[in-house]
Amino acid sequence: MRIDIITVLPELMQSPFEASIMKRAIQKGLVEVHFHNLRDYTTNKQRSVDDYQFGGGAGMVMMVQPIDDCISKLKSERTYDEIIYMTPDGETLNQKMANSISMYENIIILCGHYKGVDQRVRDMHITREISIGDYVLSGGEIGAIVFCDAIIRLIPGVLSDETSALTDSFQDNLLSPPIYTRPAEYKGLKVPEVLLSGNFGKIEKWREEMAYEHTKNRRPDLLEND
Amino acid sequence: MRIDIITVLPELMQSPFEASIMKRAIQKGLVEVHFHNLRDYTTNKQRSVDDYQFGGGAGMVMMVQPIDDCISKLKSERTYDEIIYMTPDGETLNQKMANSISMYENIIILCGHYKGVDQRVRDMHITREISIGDYVLSGGEIGAIVFCDAIIRLIPGVLSDETSALTDSFQDNLLSPPIYTRPAEYKGLKVPEVLLSGNFGKIEKWREEMAYEHTKNRRPDLLEND
Repeated sequence: MRIDIITVLPELMQSPFEASIMKRAIQKGLVEVHFHNLRDYTTNKQRSVDDYQFGGGAGMVMMVQPIDDCISKLKSERTYDEIIYMTPDGETLNQKMANSISMYENIIILCGHYKGVDQRVRDMHITREISIGDYVLSGGEIGAIVFCDAIIRLIPGVLSDETSALTDSFQDNLLSPPIYTRPAEYKGLKVPEVLLSGNFGKIEKWREEMAYEHTKNRRPDLLEND
Repeated sequence: MRIDIITVLPELMQSPFEASIMKRAIQKGLVEVHFHNLRDYTTNKQRSVDDYQFGGGAGMVMMVQPIDDCISKLKSERTYDEIIYMTPDGETLNQKMANSISMYENIIILCGHYKGVDQRVRDMHITREISIGDYVLSGGEIGAIVFCDAIIRLIPGVLSDETSALTDSFQDNLLSPPIYTRPAEYKGLKVPEVLLSGNFGKIEKWREEMAYEHTKNRRPDLLEND
Protein backbone atom coordinates (compact mmCIF):
# COMPACT_ATOMS: atom_id res chain seq x y z
CA MET A 1 0.00 0.00 0.00
CA ARG A 2 1.12 3.55 -0.77
CA ILE A 3 -0.11 6.47 1.33
CA ASP A 4 0.49 10.08 0.22
CA ILE A 5 -0.11 12.58 3.01
CA ILE A 6 -0.60 16.26 2.17
CA THR A 7 0.02 18.58 5.12
CA VAL A 8 1.31 21.97 6.23
CA LEU A 9 2.98 20.32 9.24
CA PRO A 10 4.96 17.22 8.21
CA GLU A 11 7.16 17.72 11.31
CA LEU A 12 4.16 17.19 13.61
CA MET A 13 3.58 13.75 12.09
CA GLN A 14 7.10 12.40 12.29
CA SER A 15 7.49 10.41 15.52
CA PRO A 16 4.42 8.13 15.29
CA PHE A 17 5.69 6.86 11.92
CA GLU A 18 9.18 6.28 13.33
CA ALA A 19 8.16 3.99 16.21
CA SER A 20 6.40 0.73 16.91
CA ILE A 21 4.03 -0.89 14.40
CA MET A 22 4.08 1.84 11.73
CA LYS A 23 7.88 1.95 11.68
CA ARG A 24 8.04 -1.83 11.35
CA ALA A 25 5.48 -1.88 8.53
CA ILE A 26 7.48 0.74 6.61
CA GLN A 27 10.79 -1.08 7.20
CA LYS A 28 9.29 -4.37 6.03
CA GLY A 29 8.19 -2.61 2.83
CA LEU A 30 4.53 -3.42 3.49
CA VAL A 31 3.54 0.24 3.28
CA GLU A 32 5.11 3.36 1.76
CA VAL A 33 4.27 6.69 3.36
CA HIS A 34 5.11 9.92 1.49
CA PHE A 35 4.69 13.34 3.06
CA HIS A 36 4.00 16.34 0.84
CA ASN A 37 4.54 19.76 2.36
CA LEU A 38 1.86 22.02 1.00
CA ARG A 39 4.19 25.01 1.14
CA ASP A 40 6.19 23.47 -1.72
CA TYR A 41 3.15 23.98 -3.94
CA THR A 42 2.52 27.65 -3.25
CA THR A 43 2.99 30.20 -6.03
CA ASN A 44 3.01 33.32 -3.85
CA LYS A 45 6.21 34.92 -2.52
CA GLN A 46 5.32 34.41 1.15
CA ARG A 47 4.66 30.67 0.60
CA SER A 48 1.42 31.19 2.47
CA VAL A 49 -1.17 28.41 2.23
CA ASP A 50 -4.10 30.13 3.95
CA ASP A 51 -6.15 33.30 3.71
CA TYR A 52 -9.12 35.02 5.41
CA GLN A 53 -12.55 33.55 4.84
CA PHE A 54 -15.03 35.19 2.51
CA GLY A 55 -17.95 36.65 4.42
CA GLY A 56 -15.84 37.30 7.53
CA GLY A 57 -15.38 35.26 10.67
CA ALA A 58 -12.60 33.88 12.84
CA GLY A 59 -10.09 31.34 11.55
CA MET A 60 -8.08 31.03 8.35
CA VAL A 61 -9.01 28.90 5.33
CA MET A 62 -6.59 26.75 3.31
CA MET A 63 -6.41 28.01 -0.28
CA VAL A 64 -7.48 25.89 -3.23
CA GLN A 65 -4.47 26.41 -5.55
CA PRO A 66 -1.63 24.68 -3.62
CA ILE A 67 -3.84 21.70 -2.76
CA ASP A 68 -5.19 21.42 -6.30
CA ASP A 69 -1.65 21.50 -7.72
CA CYS A 70 -0.39 18.86 -5.28
CA ILE A 71 -3.30 16.46 -5.76
CA SER A 72 -3.27 16.96 -9.55
CA LYS A 73 0.43 16.10 -9.71
CA LEU A 74 -0.07 12.92 -7.65
CA LYS A 75 -3.09 11.89 -9.75
CA SER A 76 -1.02 12.29 -12.92
CA GLU A 77 1.52 9.80 -11.55
CA ARG A 78 -0.77 6.93 -10.47
CA THR A 79 -4.37 5.93 -9.86
CA TYR A 80 -5.75 6.37 -6.36
CA ASP A 81 -8.45 4.24 -4.73
CA GLU A 82 -9.56 7.16 -2.59
CA ILE A 83 -8.61 10.78 -1.99
CA ILE A 84 -9.49 11.26 1.64
CA TYR A 85 -10.01 14.52 3.54
CA MET A 86 -9.69 14.31 7.32
CA THR A 87 -12.43 16.52 8.75
CA PRO A 88 -14.69 16.47 11.84
CA ASP A 89 -17.79 16.60 9.61
CA GLY A 90 -16.83 13.49 7.64
CA GLU A 91 -18.04 9.89 7.97
CA THR A 92 -17.03 8.57 11.41
CA LEU A 93 -14.20 6.02 11.24
CA ASN A 94 -15.00 2.55 12.53
CA GLN A 95 -13.30 -0.83 12.44
CA LYS A 96 -15.27 -2.03 9.39
CA MET A 97 -14.08 0.99 7.38
CA ALA A 98 -10.50 0.45 8.58
CA ASN A 99 -10.70 -3.21 7.48
CA SER A 100 -11.85 -2.36 3.97
CA ILE A 101 -9.52 0.61 3.42
CA SER A 102 -6.54 -1.50 4.58
CA MET A 103 -6.93 -3.47 1.34
CA TYR A 104 -6.47 -0.48 -0.97
CA GLU A 105 -3.37 0.04 -3.08
CA ASN A 106 -2.96 3.84 -3.25
CA ILE A 107 -4.60 6.53 -1.16
CA ILE A 108 -4.11 10.26 -0.64
CA ILE A 109 -4.84 11.78 2.76
CA LEU A 110 -5.35 15.54 2.89
CA CYS A 111 -4.95 17.02 6.35
CA GLY A 112 -7.10 20.07 6.96
CA HIS A 113 -5.57 22.70 9.21
CA TYR A 114 -6.71 26.09 10.53
CA LYS A 115 -10.47 26.41 9.93
CA GLY A 116 -10.36 23.84 7.09
CA VAL A 117 -9.97 23.83 3.31
CA ASP A 118 -11.73 25.94 0.70
CA GLN A 119 -14.94 24.07 -0.18
CA ARG A 120 -13.88 23.92 -3.85
CA VAL A 121 -11.04 21.51 -2.98
CA ARG A 122 -13.67 19.13 -1.63
CA ASP A 123 -15.87 19.58 -4.69
CA MET A 124 -12.99 19.05 -7.15
CA HIS A 125 -10.93 16.22 -5.70
CA ILE A 126 -12.11 14.58 -2.51
CA THR A 127 -13.74 11.15 -2.87
CA ARG A 128 -14.22 10.45 0.82
CA GLU A 129 -14.35 12.56 3.99
CA ILE A 130 -13.43 10.86 7.24
CA SER A 131 -13.65 11.94 10.89
CA ILE A 132 -12.03 10.01 13.72
CA GLY A 133 -14.69 11.13 16.23
CA ASP A 134 -17.07 13.83 17.43
CA TYR A 135 -14.51 16.28 18.72
CA VAL A 136 -12.35 19.00 17.21
CA LEU A 137 -8.58 18.75 16.90
CA SER A 138 -6.05 21.44 16.09
CA GLY A 139 -5.51 19.85 12.69
CA GLY A 140 -6.19 16.92 10.42
CA GLU A 141 -2.60 15.75 10.99
CA ILE A 142 -3.56 14.08 14.26
CA GLY A 143 -6.59 12.48 12.66
CA ALA A 144 -4.38 11.21 9.85
CA ILE A 145 -1.96 9.61 12.35
CA VAL A 146 -4.89 7.72 13.91
CA PHE A 147 -6.31 6.73 10.55
CA CYS A 148 -2.93 5.48 9.25
CA ASP A 149 -2.26 3.46 12.39
CA ALA A 150 -5.74 1.89 12.29
CA ILE A 151 -5.32 0.71 8.69
CA ILE A 152 -1.59 -0.08 8.59
CA ARG A 153 -1.78 -2.55 11.49
CA LEU A 154 -4.36 -4.53 9.49
CA ILE A 155 -2.17 -5.02 6.42
CA PRO A 156 -1.22 -8.74 6.32
CA GLY A 157 2.26 -9.29 7.72
CA VAL A 158 2.41 -6.13 9.82
CA LEU A 159 1.41 -7.63 13.18
CA SER A 160 3.69 -10.45 14.21
CA ASP A 161 0.77 -12.52 15.47
CA GLU A 162 -2.22 -12.02 13.23
CA THR A 163 -4.68 -13.72 15.50
CA SER A 164 -4.03 -10.85 17.89
CA ALA A 165 -5.81 -8.39 15.58
CA LEU A 166 -8.73 -10.79 15.13
CA THR A 167 -9.46 -10.92 18.86
CA ASP A 168 -9.36 -7.12 19.28
CA SER A 169 -12.37 -5.14 20.45
CA PHE A 170 -14.89 -4.38 17.64
CA GLN A 171 -13.78 -7.15 15.25
CA ASP A 172 -16.83 -9.16 16.37
CA ASN A 173 -18.94 -6.24 17.67
CA LEU A 174 -17.94 -7.15 21.23
CA LEU A 175 -15.58 -5.42 23.63
CA SER A 176 -12.66 -7.48 24.93
CA PRO A 177 -13.00 -9.53 28.12
CA PRO A 178 -10.71 -8.62 31.07
CA ILE A 179 -7.12 -9.83 30.76
CA TYR A 180 -4.55 -10.78 33.40
CA THR A 181 -0.90 -11.69 33.59
CA ARG A 182 1.50 -12.75 36.34
CA PRO A 183 1.60 -12.66 39.32
CA ALA A 184 -1.56 -14.65 40.14
CA GLU A 185 -1.93 -12.53 43.27
CA TYR A 186 -0.90 -8.89 43.66
CA LYS A 187 -1.55 -6.95 46.86
CA GLY A 188 -4.37 -9.32 47.66
CA LEU A 189 -5.98 -9.04 44.23
CA LYS A 190 -6.32 -12.45 42.59
CA VAL A 191 -6.67 -13.54 38.99
CA PRO A 192 -10.05 -15.28 38.38
CA GLU A 193 -9.73 -19.04 39.16
CA VAL A 194 -10.98 -20.15 35.76
CA LEU A 195 -8.01 -18.56 33.95
CA LEU A 196 -5.63 -20.70 36.02
CA SER A 197 -7.66 -23.90 35.52
CA GLY A 198 -6.03 -25.06 32.30
CA ASN A 199 -9.50 -26.00 31.04
CA PHE A 200 -9.56 -24.21 27.71
CA GLY A 201 -13.20 -24.94 26.99
CA LYS A 202 -14.20 -23.31 30.26
CA ILE A 203 -11.82 -20.40 29.69
CA GLU A 204 -13.26 -19.77 26.25
CA LYS A 205 -16.81 -19.82 27.63
CA TRP A 206 -15.89 -17.46 30.50
CA ARG A 207 -14.27 -15.01 28.07
CA GLU A 208 -17.31 -15.01 25.80
CA GLU A 209 -19.62 -14.37 28.74
CA MET A 210 -17.42 -11.59 30.11
CA ALA A 211 -17.12 -9.94 26.68
CA TYR A 212 -20.89 -10.04 26.28
CA GLU A 213 -21.55 -8.70 29.81
CA HIS A 214 -18.94 -5.98 29.40
CA THR A 215 -20.44 -4.91 26.07
CA LYS A 216 -24.00 -5.00 27.45
CA ASN A 217 -23.00 -2.77 30.38
CA ARG A 218 -20.83 -0.30 28.55
CA ARG A 219 -21.86 -0.25 24.92
CA PRO A 220 -25.29 -1.82 24.41
CA ASP A 221 -25.42 0.04 21.05
CA LEU A 222 -22.79 -2.35 19.65
CA LEU A 223 -25.07 -5.34 20.28
CA GLU A 224 -27.91 -3.71 18.35
CA ASN A 225 -25.89 -3.40 15.14
CA ASP A 226 -26.32 -6.58 13.10
CA MET B 1 -3.09 22.17 33.81
CA ARG B 2 -0.61 19.37 34.42
CA ILE B 3 -0.77 16.16 32.38
CA ASP B 4 1.26 13.09 33.38
CA ILE B 5 1.47 10.51 30.61
CA ILE B 6 2.51 6.94 31.42
CA THR B 7 3.75 5.01 28.39
CA VAL B 8 6.17 2.37 27.14
CA LEU B 9 6.81 4.49 24.04
CA PRO B 10 7.51 8.13 24.94
CA GLU B 11 9.49 8.47 21.70
CA LEU B 12 6.34 7.75 19.65
CA MET B 13 4.57 10.71 21.23
CA GLN B 14 7.27 13.32 20.79
CA SER B 15 6.59 15.25 17.57
CA PRO B 16 2.91 16.16 18.07
CA PHE B 17 3.84 17.88 21.35
CA GLU B 18 6.69 19.75 19.66
CA ALA B 19 4.64 21.41 16.93
CA SER B 20 1.70 23.72 16.41
CA ILE B 21 -0.91 24.32 19.13
CA MET B 22 0.41 21.88 21.77
CA LYS B 23 3.94 23.26 21.49
CA ARG B 24 2.65 26.80 21.88
CA ALA B 25 0.50 25.90 24.89
CA ILE B 26 3.51 24.31 26.60
CA GLN B 27 5.78 27.25 25.76
CA LYS B 28 3.23 29.73 27.11
CA GLY B 29 3.15 27.74 30.36
CA LEU B 30 -0.57 27.03 30.02
CA VAL B 31 -0.01 23.28 30.24
CA GLU B 32 2.77 21.06 31.57
CA VAL B 33 3.17 17.63 29.98
CA HIS B 34 5.35 15.03 31.73
CA PHE B 35 6.16 11.69 30.15
CA HIS B 36 6.88 8.70 32.38
CA ASN B 37 8.59 5.73 30.76
CA LEU B 38 7.12 2.62 32.31
CA ARG B 39 10.41 0.77 31.93
CA ASP B 40 11.88 3.02 34.62
CA TYR B 41 9.46 1.40 37.08
CA THR B 42 10.27 -2.24 36.38
CA THR B 43 11.91 -4.35 39.08
CA ASN B 44 12.98 -7.25 36.85
CA LYS B 45 16.42 -7.50 35.22
CA GLN B 46 15.10 -7.44 31.65
CA ARG B 47 13.10 -4.25 32.34
CA SER B 48 10.16 -6.01 30.70
CA VAL B 49 6.73 -4.46 31.21
CA ASP B 50 4.58 -7.21 29.70
CA ASP B 51 3.96 -10.94 30.06
CA TYR B 52 1.79 -13.72 28.57
CA GLN B 53 -1.90 -13.69 29.46
CA PHE B 54 -3.34 -16.13 31.96
CA GLY B 55 -5.59 -18.64 30.26
CA GLY B 56 -3.67 -18.47 26.99
CA GLY B 57 -4.31 -16.49 23.82
CA ALA B 58 -2.46 -14.15 21.46
CA GLY B 59 -1.05 -10.80 22.60
CA MET B 60 0.94 -9.69 25.63
CA VAL B 61 -0.51 -8.03 28.74
CA MET B 62 1.03 -5.08 30.59
CA MET B 63 1.96 -6.10 34.14
CA VAL B 64 0.41 -4.51 37.19
CA GLN B 65 3.56 -3.77 39.27
CA PRO B 66 5.33 -1.11 37.16
CA ILE B 67 2.07 0.75 36.51
CA ASP B 68 1.00 0.54 40.17
CA ASP B 69 4.38 1.88 41.28
CA CYS B 70 4.34 4.75 38.79
CA ILE B 71 0.76 5.83 39.56
CA SER B 72 1.28 5.46 43.32
CA LYS B 73 4.35 7.68 43.18
CA LEU B 74 2.50 10.39 41.23
CA LYS B 75 -0.52 10.20 43.57
CA SER B 76 1.80 10.69 46.57
CA GLU B 77 3.04 13.94 45.03
CA ARG B 78 -0.26 15.66 44.21
CA THR B 79 -4.00 15.18 43.89
CA TYR B 80 -5.38 14.17 40.51
CA ASP B 81 -8.81 15.05 39.13
CA GLU B 82 -8.86 11.89 37.03
CA ILE B 83 -6.64 8.91 36.30
CA ILE B 84 -7.55 8.07 32.75
CA TYR B 85 -6.90 4.84 30.86
CA MET B 86 -7.00 5.10 27.07
CA THR B 87 -8.75 1.96 25.82
CA PRO B 88 -11.09 1.07 22.94
CA ASP B 89 -13.70 -0.23 25.39
CA GLY B 90 -13.89 3.07 27.34
CA GLU B 91 -16.43 5.88 27.14
CA THR B 92 -16.30 7.44 23.67
CA LEU B 93 -14.68 10.88 23.66
CA ASN B 94 -16.87 13.75 22.49
CA GLN B 95 -16.64 17.54 22.51
CA LYS B 96 -18.66 17.92 25.71
CA MET B 97 -16.23 15.63 27.58
CA ALA B 98 -13.26 17.52 26.11
CA ASN B 99 -14.78 20.82 27.27
CA SER B 100 -15.21 19.65 30.86
CA ILE B 101 -11.87 17.83 31.16
CA SER B 102 -10.06 20.92 29.80
CA MET B 103 -10.93 22.64 33.08
CA TYR B 104 -9.14 20.10 35.31
CA GLU B 105 -5.92 20.88 37.13
CA ASN B 106 -4.03 17.54 37.21
CA ILE B 107 -4.68 14.40 35.23
CA ILE B 108 -2.81 11.15 34.61
CA ILE B 109 -3.16 9.41 31.26
CA LEU B 110 -2.19 5.74 31.12
CA CYS B 111 -1.52 4.48 27.60
CA GLY B 112 -2.36 0.81 27.10
CA HIS B 113 -0.10 -1.05 24.71
CA TYR B 114 0.10 -4.64 23.41
CA LYS B 115 -3.18 -6.38 24.33
CA GLY B 116 -3.86 -3.92 27.17
CA VAL B 117 -3.22 -3.70 30.93
CA ASP B 118 -3.81 -6.29 33.64
CA GLN B 119 -7.40 -5.81 34.82
CA ARG B 120 -6.19 -5.20 38.39
CA VAL B 121 -4.61 -1.88 37.32
CA ARG B 122 -8.06 -0.74 36.23
CA ASP B 123 -9.65 -1.96 39.45
CA MET B 124 -7.02 -0.31 41.68
CA HIS B 125 -6.35 3.08 40.11
CA ILE B 126 -8.33 4.07 37.05
CA THR B 127 -11.13 6.60 37.59
CA ARG B 128 -12.13 6.99 33.96
CA GLU B 129 -11.68 4.94 30.79
CA ILE B 130 -11.76 6.80 27.50
CA SER B 131 -11.84 5.65 23.88
CA ILE B 132 -11.32 8.01 20.96
CA GLY B 133 -13.51 5.91 18.64
CA ASP B 134 -14.75 2.47 17.59
CA TYR B 135 -11.53 1.21 16.05
CA VAL B 136 -8.39 -0.43 17.34
CA LEU B 137 -5.00 1.28 17.35
CA SER B 138 -1.55 -0.20 17.91
CA GLY B 139 -1.43 1.53 21.29
CA GLY B 140 -3.01 4.01 23.64
CA GLU B 141 -0.22 6.48 22.83
CA ILE B 142 -2.01 7.57 19.66
CA GLY B 143 -5.30 7.89 21.54
CA ALA B 144 -3.53 9.99 24.16
CA ILE B 145 -2.15 12.35 21.51
CA VAL B 146 -5.69 12.92 20.22
CA PHE B 147 -7.11 13.34 23.71
CA CYS B 148 -4.40 15.84 24.74
CA ASP B 149 -4.82 17.90 21.59
CA ALA B 150 -8.63 17.98 21.99
CA ILE B 151 -8.41 19.30 25.57
CA ILE B 152 -5.27 21.48 25.37
CA ARG B 153 -6.67 23.62 22.56
CA LEU B 154 -9.65 24.48 24.78
CA ILE B 155 -7.57 25.85 27.67
CA PRO B 156 -8.15 29.63 27.75
CA GLY B 157 -5.28 31.49 26.09
CA VAL B 158 -4.09 28.59 23.92
CA LEU B 159 -5.86 29.49 20.69
CA SER B 160 -4.94 32.95 19.51
CA ASP B 161 -8.51 33.71 18.50
CA GLU B 162 -10.87 32.10 20.98
CA THR B 163 -13.99 32.69 18.96
CA SER B 164 -12.47 30.28 16.47
CA ALA B 165 -12.96 27.35 18.85
CA LEU B 166 -16.52 28.42 19.58
CA THR B 167 -17.53 28.20 15.92
CA ASP B 168 -16.00 24.73 15.43
CA SER B 169 -18.08 21.72 14.50
CA PHE B 170 -19.88 20.09 17.48
CA GLN B 171 -19.76 23.10 19.80
CA ASP B 172 -23.43 23.72 18.99
CA ASN B 173 -24.32 20.19 17.82
CA LEU B 174 -24.05 21.37 14.22
CA LEU B 175 -21.39 20.66 11.62
CA SER B 176 -19.63 23.68 10.11
CA PRO B 177 -21.00 25.38 6.99
CA PRO B 178 -18.77 25.41 3.86
CA ILE B 179 -15.94 27.93 3.89
CA TYR B 180 -14.16 29.77 1.07
CA THR B 181 -11.19 32.04 0.59
CA ARG B 182 -9.61 33.91 -2.33
CA PRO B 183 -9.72 33.80 -5.30
CA ALA B 184 -13.46 34.40 -5.84
CA GLU B 185 -13.24 32.25 -8.96
CA TYR B 186 -10.90 29.29 -9.50
CA LYS B 187 -11.00 27.17 -12.67
CA GLY B 188 -14.61 28.24 -13.20
CA LEU B 189 -15.68 27.42 -9.64
CA LYS B 190 -17.19 30.47 -7.93
CA VAL B 191 -17.63 31.40 -4.29
CA PRO B 192 -21.36 31.68 -3.38
CA GLU B 193 -22.60 35.23 -4.12
CA VAL B 194 -23.92 35.83 -0.63
CA LEU B 195 -20.43 35.57 0.92
CA LEU B 196 -19.24 38.44 -1.31
CA SER B 197 -22.33 40.59 -0.58
CA GLY B 198 -21.01 42.35 2.52
CA ASN B 199 -24.48 41.87 4.08
CA PHE B 200 -23.55 40.23 7.36
CA GLY B 201 -27.14 39.48 8.38
CA LYS B 202 -27.67 37.56 5.16
CA ILE B 203 -24.29 35.81 5.50
CA GLU B 204 -25.12 34.70 9.05
CA LYS B 205 -28.48 33.36 7.93
CA TRP B 206 -26.93 31.49 4.98
CA ARG B 207 -24.31 29.93 7.23
CA GLU B 208 -26.90 28.76 9.73
CA GLU B 209 -28.99 27.23 6.97
CA MET B 210 -26.00 25.50 5.39
CA ALA B 211 -24.80 24.17 8.75
CA TYR B 212 -28.27 22.80 9.46
CA GLU B 213 -28.64 21.25 5.98
CA HIS B 214 -25.15 19.76 6.12
CA THR B 215 -25.85 18.24 9.56
CA LYS B 216 -29.26 16.92 8.45
CA ASN B 217 -27.69 15.22 5.42
CA ARG B 218 -24.59 13.82 7.06
CA ARG B 219 -25.24 13.42 10.76
CA PRO B 220 -28.96 13.53 11.56
CA ASP B 221 -28.08 11.82 14.87
CA LEU B 222 -26.50 15.08 16.10
CA LEU B 223 -29.81 16.93 15.71
CA GLU B 224 -31.62 14.33 17.83
CA ASN B 225 -29.37 14.86 20.86
CA ASP B 226 -30.79 17.54 23.15
